[in-house]
Parts: sequence; C-alpha cells; structure tokens
Amino acid sequence: MTEVIGYRPTADELSYTFGGREPVRRVKPGTILELYTEDCFGGRVRTVDDLPSQVCEFPYLNPVTGPFHIEGAEPGDTLAVHFAEIVPARDWAVSSTFPHFGALTTTHTTAMLHPPLDEVVWRYDVDVPAGLVRYHARRGDFSMELPLDPMHGTAGVAPAAFESRMTIVPDAHGGNMDTPELRAGVTAYFGVNVPGALFALGDGHCRQGEGEVCGTAVESAMNTVLIVDVIKGAATPTPRFETDEALMSAGSARPLEDAYRMSQHDLVTWAADLTGLDVLDAYQLISQAGEAPVGNVCDPNYTMLAKVPKRYLGVAPAYEGVHSRLRTVAQNHLSSR
Amino acid sequence: MTEVIGYRPTADELSYTFGGREPVRRVKPGTILELYTEDCFGGRVRTVDDLPSQVCEFPYLNPVTGPFHIEGAEPGDTLAVHFAEIVPARDWAVSSTFPHFGALTTTHTTAMLHPPLDEVVWRYDVDVPAGLVRYHARRGDFSMELPLDPMHGTAGVAPAAFESRMTIVPDAHGGNMDTPELRAGVTAYFGVNVPGALFALGDGHCRQGEGEVCGTAVESAMNTVLIVDVIKGAATPTPRFETDEALMSAGSARPLEDAYRMSQHDLVTWAADLTGLDVLDAYQLISQAGEAPVGNVCDPNYTMLAKVPKRYLGVAPAYEGVHSRLRTVAQNHLSSR
Amino acid sequence: MTEVIGYRPTADELSYTFGGREPVRRVKPGTILELYTEDCFGGRVRTVDDLPSQVCEFPYLNPVTGPFHIEGAEPGDTLAVHFAEIVPARDWAVSSTFPHFGALTTTHTTAMLHPPLDEVVWRYDVDVPAGLVRYHARRGDFSMELPLDPMHGTAGVAPAAFESRMTIVPDAHGGNMDTPELRAGVTAYFGVNVPGALFALGDGHCRQGEGEVCGTAVESAMNTVLIVDVIKGAATPTPRFETDEALMSAGSARPLEDAYRMSQHDLVTWAADLTGLDVLDAYQLISQAGEAPVGNVCDPNYTMLAKVPKRYLGVAPAYEGVHSRLRTVAQNHLSSR
Amino acid sequence: MTEVIGYRPTADELSYTFGGREPVRRVKPGTILELYTEDCFGGRVRTVDDLPSQVCEFPYLNPVTGPFHIEGAEPGDTLAVHFAEIVPARDWAVSSTFPHFGALTTTHTTAMLHPPLDEVVWRYDVDVPAGLVRYHARRGDFSMELPLDPMHGTAGVAPAAFESRMTIVPDAHGGNMDTPELRAGVTAYFGVNVPGALFALGDGHCRQGEGEVCGTAVESAMNTVLIVDVIKGAATPTPRFETDEALMSAGSARPLEDAYRMSQHDLVTWAADLTGLDVLDAYQLISQAGEAPVGNVCDPNYTMLAKVPKRYLGVAPAYEGVHSRLRTVAQNHLSSR
Repeated sequence: MTEVIGYRPTADELSYTFGGREPVRRVKPGTILELYTEDCFGGRVRTVDDLPSQVCEFPYLNPVTGPFHIEGAEPGDTLAVHFAEIVPARDWAVSSTFPHFGALTTTHTTAMLHPPLDEVVWRYDVDVPAGLVRYHARRGDFSMELPLDPMHGTAGVAPAAFESRMTIVPDAHGGNMDTPELRAGVTAYFGVNVPGALFALGDGHCRQGEGEVCGTAVESAMNTVLIVDVIKGAATPTPRFETDEALMSAGSARPLEDAYRMSQHDLVTWAADLTGLDVLDAYQLISQAGEAPVGNVCDPNYTMLAKVPKRYLGVAPAYEGVHSRLRTVAQNHLSSR
Repeated sequence: MTEVIGYRPTADELSYTFGGREPVRRVKPGTILELYTEDCFGGRVRTVDDLPSQVCEFPYLNPVTGPFHIEGAEPGDTLAVHFAEIVPARDWAVSSTFPHFGALTTTHTTAMLHPPLDEVVWRYDVDVPAGLVRYHARRGDFSMELPLDPMHGTAGVAPAAFESRMTIVPDAHGGNMDTPELRAGVTAYFGVNVPGALFALGDGHCRQGEGEVCGTAVESAMNTVLIVDVIKGAATPTPRFETDEALMSAGSARPLEDAYRMSQHDLVTWAADLTGLDVLDAYQLISQAGEAPVGNVCDPNYTMLAKVPKRYLGVAPAYEGVHSRLRTVAQNHLSSR
Repeated sequence: MTEVIGYRPTADELSYTFGGREPVRRVKPGTILELYTEDCFGGRVRTVDDLPSQVCEFPYLNPVTGPFHIEGAEPGDTLAVHFAEIVPARDWAVSSTFPHFGALTTTHTTAMLHPPLDEVVWRYDVDVPAGLVRYHARRGDFSMELPLDPMHGTAGVAPAAFESRMTIVPDAHGGNMDTPELRAGVTAYFGVNVPGALFALGDGHCRQGEGEVCGTAVESAMNTVLIVDVIKGAATPTPRFETDEALMSAGSARPLEDAYRMSQHDLVTWAADLTGLDVLDAYQLISQAGEAPVGNVCDPNYTMLAKVPKRYLGVAPAYEGVHSRLRTVAQNHLSSR
Repeated sequence: MTEVIGYRPTADELSYTFGGREPVRRVKPGTILELYTEDCFGGRVRTVDDLPSQVCEFPYLNPVTGPFHIEGAEPGDTLAVHFAEIVPARDWAVSSTFPHFGALTTTHTTAMLHPPLDEVVWRYDVDVPAGLVRYHARRGDFSMELPLDPMHGTAGVAPAAFESRMTIVPDAHGGNMDTPELRAGVTAYFGVNVPGALFALGDGHCRQGEGEVCGTAVESAMNTVLIVDVIKGAATPTPRFETDEALMSAGSARPLEDAYRMSQHDLVTWAADLTGLDVLDAYQLISQAGEAPVGNVCDPNYTMLAKVPKRYLGVAPAYEGVHSRLRTVAQNHLSSR
C-alpha cells in the first residue's frame, strides 16, 4: 500500500539552503509526496510594480520545500525521485530582470563598470486547462501565447563534505539546475551524501527558455506530485534524469564548457557501464547520437545536460528499472484520485 | 530563368582557408549551385586502419569547395544561401578520435600533461534510401542504426580585415560552426566582408551529436544543391539561419558562455528589430521562448545557436522574405530534375 | 594592554568548513593570536611513500584552525587580520600531485577520459634560519634550493546566506585563495557575514609558485602570529589585502577572467572611493599602474589579485589606517618576546 | 661585421595583419634593425578630443612595422629577436577607453545589453630622460607620475596554415600579446611558419598594467633597436622569452585558464627538456618556483606567461646561448653609437 503525504510549508518552514537544515518530514522509500512549492520570489512579486530587489530580501530568495528525510538512504546510495505531476498553483506567474543577474548583463562575477540593466517585471497569465501562458510586453502592446511546460528549476539533496549551499546554486547535489528537462514524467537520480538524503525542491517554472538568459523563467508556485525511492549501494556522481525515452546526465560548473564536459563525461561512462561498450566506443556513439540541452547560463554554476535516446543504447534498464516501476505507481495514484 | 552551375573540385582546387584565395567561379545572385564537397579528411580515411594523423597532413585538413564570387555582393551586404539538398556521396562514412582534439581530451589549448587518447577510426555504413547510418563498435560486437541527418559542418565567406582563417575555425564569417542545424531546408545568412563574398563550404556530416564531443562527426563527401542571393544594404553581424519555422543566430567564441551570449544577444536584438519590441521586452520573450542548440565544443571557437520559433514573434518576414523565395525556387529546381 | 592568546588545536578541534561550526574561542578585537596550523594533508603525508589519496580521507582535507569568534563583529563590518609572523613548524614539508587535481590534468570539472596523472610525493627540507627549502627530484638526482617565503593558502570567515563551504573553496568569504601575497606583513580584510565573523586559517605553504599549477605548494604546519580587529560599519565586498606598499583586491571565480574582472573591478572602485577620482579615471590609472598577481588556478574557484602601489594613489590610508596601527602593535609584540 | 638597417615605414607601408603581406625588407640573420613603430591608433589620437572611434577607421588599427624576411628562416626553425632598446618617439602618449573593448565592459564576445562605457582619452606627458610618464585625470585635478617602462605590445611572425591574422590578435605566431615582459633586454623566440619568418612589430607602450584592463596602455610611437637571428632546426611551439635572469613561455587563448595552461605546459616541458628532469619532476619544480605574469585580458585571445628564474633550473643555456650572444652584439652596437 503506497503511502501518500501531503505537505504545504508555512512561511517559516521554507528553506534557503541545501544542507544545514533539519528535515520537515521523515518518509519511507516508496512514499508519494503531494507538495506545494512557492515561487523563487517567495510569492512577493505579484504585479509589475513589485520590483524583486525591493520586495525580496537577500538571502531569502528561491525558497524550497523540504528537506525530506528518506528513511534508509545512506551515503553511497542513490535517491530516485519520479516527478508525476507539476501544476501551476495560480493563474498568473511573473518574470523579471534583476540587477546584476542574467547572461547578458554585468554580474557579481562577470564584473563590469556598467550600471545594471533596468529592473522590469513581466506578469504572465497562466491557463492550465488550455496549456498556455500569455506574455505581455511592458513597453508596447505586443502579447503572445506560449505553451505551458511546467518544471522545477530547483531540486536536490544535502551536499557532501558538511557543506550547506544557497538554493540558487546548482552543483553535484542538484540544486538550481534550471533545466526545462525536469518536467513531469522524469525520474531524477541524486547521489546521497548524508543519512536520509534530505531532498527538497522549489522554483517552479511554467516554462523556460534554454539558458534562462534573462535570469528568471515564468516563475510560479506549484502543486507537485512525486514519489521517492532509494537505490541501495548505487553511487550517482552527478544528477541524472530518466524518461521513457532518454537518459540524461547533468553537469554544473563554470565555464560553460566544463558543464558540457562533466555532463558528457558522465553520460559516456554511464553508457559504457550500461552497454558493456569500451569507453572510446561509447564516446563515439554519444558523439553522434547525443544531445546537449542547455539548462542555465545565469546561475552561480552553469548547467548543461547530456542526453541520449535509450533506444540507441539497446540495453537493460538503468538502475534496475526503477524509473518504470515508480512511473507505474505514480500513474496509478494519479488516475485513482 | 534560374542558372544552374555544377562544380566538382579537383584535388588542387580544394581550399583550406576562408579568405586569401582566388574564387573558383563567379556566379550571379539567384544561381543554383550543384556542388561536390570532400569530407574533412580529404577522403583519405577510408578504413579503420587509416589513422588520420598518419594519412592526413597538416594543414591540408577540412577542405572546402569554393570560394565562389557572388556578383554584386559588397561589404555591408548580406549573402543568403539556401540549402536545398545535402546527400551523402558514398555508402560509407568515417569518424575518429584525433590526438589532442575533442572535448574530453587534452588539447593544444586546454593543455595537460596526459598522453593523447588512443586514435581510433569508426567506419559507418550509409544507407541513403533508408535514411540510416550504422555504427559499429571497434572493441566489441555492438552495432546500432542511427537516423541519417545530413548537414555541412563548414560554410562561410571571406573574413573581414584582410584575414585568412583555417577552415577549421568558426567565427563571424561562418566557417566550421559544426551545428546540426545547417541541414537542407535552411537559409543561411552571412555578412559580406569582401567584394563577391567568396562563399565556400565543406565538411559534410551524415549526422552529428550536439557539441561533436569526440571532435568528429559521421564524416562524408556530399552532393549538395544550394541557391545563393545577395541582400543589398543589409548588414548581418554574425551568421544567421532561417527555416520555415524558426530564426537562429550563431555565436562562435570561447569560453562557451560567450558563444551563448553572442548568439542570444544577436537573437534578442534581431527579434527587437523585427517586432518593434523594446530590447528588454525582447530579452524577456526570448528568455522564455528561446532555445540554445549547441554546435561544437571542440573547434578553435565553440559555437552555439540561439533559436526561436517564428510564430512567437508574429512578425513580417526576416530579410524581406528571401527565405521563402529561395526555398520556392530551389524546390522547383529539385522537382524538375 | 594587548591580550595574547595561544592556541594549538587538537585533532578533533580541526575544522573542514567555513561556516557551520561553533567557535573554538571568543576573542576581543585587538587580540594577538599565536596559532598552530596543520598542513593541508592533516600531517599525514610525511614521506614520499605516503600517497595523499591513501593516507587522507575525503572530506578530512585542508584542516583549518578556528573558527574564532571576534566580539562585536557584525554583518556589515569588516574584520582586519594582520599577519605578523608565519614560521614553518617542521624542518620538512611535502608536495604532491593528487588524482584529478591541478591545472594540467583532467579534473572533476574539466572532465576528460584520460586516467589521472601519476600520484607522486615530493619531500622538501626546510631550513628556517637559512630561509631556504630544498627540492629533490623523485626520478633523478637533481636538487635545488628555493627561498623560503611562508604564507597561508587558506584564511577567511563564515560565508553569508547560511552557507557552509569546504575549506578547499575560495570565494567572497576568503577561504582557499592560495595566493603567495598572503604572507607576514599583510593585513587582510574580510567582510563580516555572521556575528563574530568566525575567522579561521590553515594550509601553510613554505612557498608557492603563482597558480599552484600542480595543485599543491610546499605544504607545512605553521606557527603563526596575527592580530585581529573589527572595523565597524565598513563593508568589504571581497577579500582585500594591504601591505606597507600596496593595496590588493582578491577575486575568486571561474573562468579565470572572471576572477580577474572581480579583482580589478573591486580595486578600481576602491581606488575611486579612496581618491575621489571618477570611476573611469580610476579605471585608467589602475590600467597603467596595476598588477595582477595570480593566486590559484587549481581550486574549485580560481583566485586572482589586483594590486596597486599605494604611492600611485597618493591618498589617505585605507580603513582609516588600521594596517599601520595593527602592524605597530604586532611588531611591538614580536620584539618583546 | 654586423649589418645595421634603419627603417621608418611610410603610412602606406604599415601592415595590419600577420601573414598575407609581402616583406618590406629582406635581411640576413645577425642584422641589427633600427625601427620606428607607430602607435596603436596610427598616430591619429593626439589630444583628449580625438576619440579613437571617430579618428580611426576599422580595420586600420594597430599598425605594425614590417614584415621583414629573414634570410634562411624556414618552417621548423626558430626566429630569435633580441630587443636592445625601446625608446618613446614623442614627449606625449595617449590611452583611452574604446567602445566594446576592455576587460570591464561589454564586448563583441562577452556580449551584453548595456550601452558601451564612455569613450574617454587620456594624454600622458612622457619624460624619457627622467624615466617617467605623467597621468592626468580627466574629471578632476589628480595627476601622478609613473615609471617609464617601454615595451612592444605586438611582435610576431606570419602564422602557419596560410592564415592571415589581424594585428590585434595574439596567438601561436605572437601578435598582440600585450605583455609588459616584452621590454628591452629580452630575446623573443618565435617558431617559423613560412620562409623568411616575416617578422613585424608595433604597438609600443610607455608602460602597461598587467592585463591592460581598460583595453589600452600608455600608447606611443617607438624607436626600437633589435637584432634578429635564426636557430636552424629548433621548433618553438609558442612564443618564448629569455632575459639574463629568466625563461618565459607565452600562451594566448580563451578562457584565461587556457592561456595559463598553455604557458605553464610549455614551460614545464621546456624545463624538462633543458634539465633532463622527468616531466612530473619539472611540473613540481615549476609549481613552486614559477611565476605567472598576466599579459592581456582584453584582446581576442588573452595572454599569460609562465616564468621561471634560470638559476632554479641550473642548466646549460636555452637555444645554445643565443640570448647571451645577441645581447653582447646589441650592447656593443648601442655603446658604439
């Protein structure tokens, strides 16, 4: 019998780091979690007049729901999280420029002598039944419908080595990877660094362009259904994703070519492990069959994914088929509601 | 009446630079070119025993067909090249590792103290009617069919400022961008730097993964049909591509985030020009609607594209509709053969 | 009357993070600290046969002494730490290659398919009275004396935003900057992020080349004398150093040009503040008068310094002369022993 | 008997590329050249009202004097150029910001949506006998004397592979390395790529900060005395410098860590060659004894040097002592005037 836990954090239960926090709940492997997550602005940006730099206060940005202690998860294991459903919680969403944040602006690290770009907020209409969001230009009459494609920008576990990291940072523990690939239907795998793994998630996006070039997506609170499991004795060096069709490895680093290298290196060696191919043979196969979806090019680390259709590997399932198993349980749960 | 010119270069007509070469032909705008291009190894790697470092001689690598002088093209104009058809010229193709080349190996610039990776050649079967290539592992029995998706890794014009660049380099003049987006159906736009533009192309790939991680694709000689045109008085700062569905800007630079920045910057400002949107409004729209296909992460400059579906811009056509016009002429030509 | 506190940590008092730890002592501003710091290997590498990857255990690397709670230090203040004396604690020191660490090897982030370089340990003779260390080649008879130039690779305070970072990471809080400029005679300034600042230091180097290219320096336990002070209401955005002759700003980031940009940006704006120069005038002056000493090009962030001789600014002292004041107190203490 | 050739180019003899140009003179190895070089603005910026973007015309920037065909120099040889004297040709010099150029501004490649920084010119007084330049703030009364330290930003030979490169680019052929280390007393070594080597130089700087952060130095026409020689059969993979005290290797690439890697890699392997040390032993020695002077962090490639005092290598001279020999001849010539 699958256990189902619903959880909506109060404002003071929100977390702003991965690591360094007590769990909000302890759950068993196989538990279904029905969660509410706040948007990256903590819900404070509601109109185009709510400038993030004025209504938000550092470091209370990008709150996550959690962390959840998954019983039995130990360092060296892998946490599997299947995302069954991600639904915007409101009929509006917001995006903005933010001073010194984004790919086409001077930042704290790519430091230049320019004043920051104008801080501007865009408010989107969100139509869940129609599967659309609507963009409105701020300095003209143009508006445009774009497909709804909900995802979580931020998901991960506590880091290794006693570290605690701001939720805005993506790294080996997951975090703010900001990849459009983290949508419903995906199973995410995270290497466990501390007892209980301490999984948390947030930063829902109604949709996002590749790279999140202005620094923010179509930001929204979300109602999300997921199921967690523990794969004992299986190490996962960097976050990985699995869908019915594809395997993916994530790399988060700077410069961006290192994010590319990390993700491709993990996918090449993972593919070699799964297929029994020699590493150079796998390198060749991924070179021709692989994709490289861009996550973010604006966060403290940049994120890229390496992706390959499973059919080109022709192999036994990854992690002994946990994706299919969790997917089935999750679908049964959704259809039984 | 459309002029059609067929051209197959002799070995000594091949070019190894963009710039610094006399044209092989002078053609009028509107001319259809039916061209043969050699593969990046000059056709010298034919079996798995032909190691590129032994059978090829620097700098006689990555030969291009051309350059073609397009009459009337002057600095400040744009050269439009519509790719109508790209067909592998042989029933085999090759790929390889190459010492100090590729994304997951020590190179001349990312210089390390490791000896180079093993130099290995893979020979693919190419089945044009079936639309497939077949990969064969070298160190095991595994083989796999992958879809044929022909493209040119290298296409461009003479650079500005009296420069001459090796064909292996991508930059503002085009060159070795190695993007899977440069397939049949695309119109490529290049800013003209010298009288006649001096267009050349080569480096056919039967298919390529994003990033060309091992440094080479499924390399093949090609029979390619294209049509050229000149757009007077329209500057193009970086190579751009147009299909029936999308607009794309290419950026070639290191580190990879600069290739991302260049391509996104051009797409944002181009979209603002086309739509009349304020630049920050365009920045926001591209941030949510845009894609960032990776070209290469192995060449002297890395290449990324910024891409947006035209329907999200809802605008009058780019370059006054030259893509549609050339596409129609090219299709008529193909269907009349 | 200056308070003097001596402290030598026991093994279980060593810290492996900045942030997330209780202080080992609470001290008043103006206190002189006489500290012992272990080497980056925790003292476990004592002969050329002690391979770090075998005798050390992740994450128990690069231990620091501290943290010290400095009374009265609050977020928004600056902690000043004047280094009066840094003396190697042993007559030997060690250096090594380490698998997947260093600038000329495949690493976790610059991920490549090469096996790691050989792990080799070098043991140096340290002659403090003569001011020399002696290098011995491992694979030949060559040996060479180099000047002793003791420094701390790691020094800093607790990070902002509830973060806890491995001691191997340099960032805005200081940490593992690995710059040869952090030697005796320097006053280091750190922005305070948490009450008490929580200063710690370690990773003594008998000397270090610029960039620490192989990943380790001439690593040694140290006996270090320093004096701490708090500058109320003065923010310091990135670690800064002052000597009798020069001002320096540190930037830690990837890629290396961002570390350069951060450090130069801070020095330019700091110089403008100190001199009253317009920012572009200061940009010009630093462009011609400035230096850019390289710290490390091997750690999770790379570190560069921007440095300018004080005489070219012709100004009132930085931080109201705290460097001169601490230097005098420290010298009096040293000469009174 | 040493041959001495004086040469002052007319305006139409100036060159704007390395490669792609006929030589202005043919000279024998051992010839002393007494040359005049124009400044990077072609002498057109003479007052603070002469804005470079208005008085200069792309691509007629950064003119070099030459190229000189050195008789007998063949691909695979090394060209040695000893700089005997570099003297500013005027009693003033200029520097400027330039739109989209410099380390702390949006550029063509680090493309951002900011408008460019203000274009400002600074005019320096140059006092050769006193060994000083004088800076004057533009937006205030501040002025400051800085030591004269003349150098050439640009020096090199024709590139390999039929390339022709703008003089503003540094790469394996030399070019616009913009390193303060290229001062009188240095012997520079360049690998020869084409018959005659085709050496050229320009871009004199009265002095320059490390990194040339604003994009220009204290720019001046120069009267320079140098002596050229050919080292037969000695390959030089990247520009190298030698003084009486030190050996240096230059690396030019992006990102900056690759310039660091290239330079350190060459110095490590060069040191191993000179000393007979194992490569890892040389890696260790350079790691502790080496320096990493920054050249430019603003040009199309960034440049770093790896530098080691010769005394730490304890070896037979590099290139069979050509530095000492050329230095002696040059000093005799200077003292005989």
